[in-house]
Amino acid sequence: MREALKQAQYALTEEEIPIGAVVVMDRQIIARAYNQTEKLHDVTAHAEMLALTAAANHVGNKYLSDCTLYVTVEPCVMCAGASFWAQVKRVVYGASEDKRGFRRHGNLLHPRTELVSGIMANECAALMQEFFARKRK
Amino acid sequence: MREALKQAQYALTEEEIPIGAVVVMDRQIIARAYNQTEKLHDVTAHAEMLALTAAANHVGNKYLSDCTLYVTVEPCVMCAGASFWAQVKRVVYGASEDKRGFRRHGNLLHPRTELVSGIMANECAALMQEFFARKRK
Repeated sequence: MREALKQAQYALTEEEIPIGAVVVMDRQIIARAYNQTEKLHDVTAHAEMLALTAAANHVGNKYLSDCTLYVTVEPCVMCAGASFWAQVKRVVYGASEDKRGFRRHGNLLHPRTELVSGIMANECAALMQEFFARKRK
Repeated sequence: MREALKQAQYALTEEEIPIGAVVVMDRQIIARAYNQTEKLHDVTAHAEMLALTAAANHVGNKYLSDCTLYVTVEPCVMCAGASFWAQVKRVVYGASEDKRGFRRHGNLLHPRTELVSGIMANECAALMQEFFARKRK
């Protein structure tokens, strides 16, 4: 999660909503990404989506059933859907997202995906708060 | 929808699940795509995702609030989530997808998105049936 937070920091310095993600397989990070929706003018360029695509590219397989996705903030419906298709082994997120997180829509993850939440939640949430406080100024 | 069906046909010839999508703005097609999850080893390469990304690239804006997304089959959760973020004006789909379609999870679309379903549903469903019949052989 510390590496995902670093990615989120990069997003913050580029004035993107500061969310970062990494994908881990066999205790190795195989993909890192941060949210780039502004730079790419593309709503699909969430950190999780870019990380899952990069990880699939790395392993040469669209299924990531031996992989853990770490992401600083609770995934949205789109990203939960992507992790469903990839059959990710574990999804670990930091801060909850009550408005845009997937959990208010029920469990959208794959039945085989384990979900862990609240890891470094304060640090992950603090970055988001910093971003939105700057925006309001 | 006829153009989206052509895209789905391309997918079928490439042994991809035959789903096609187009994005229309001001009565002009600004993006066309078909499902490429196998070729790209990427679960995020659904027809709708590729079409939304291409459309956003075309207009230089991640919001597609003047656009209609036509897709041959009911979008999944991931694609519904993407259309939410893009604030697509209208989503028009052909065949329903009871298992993997987004509708069983409630309305995941943006409150401003109009939903139209069942357009050329038989033709759209027939392509899917053909694909899965081939697979079973």
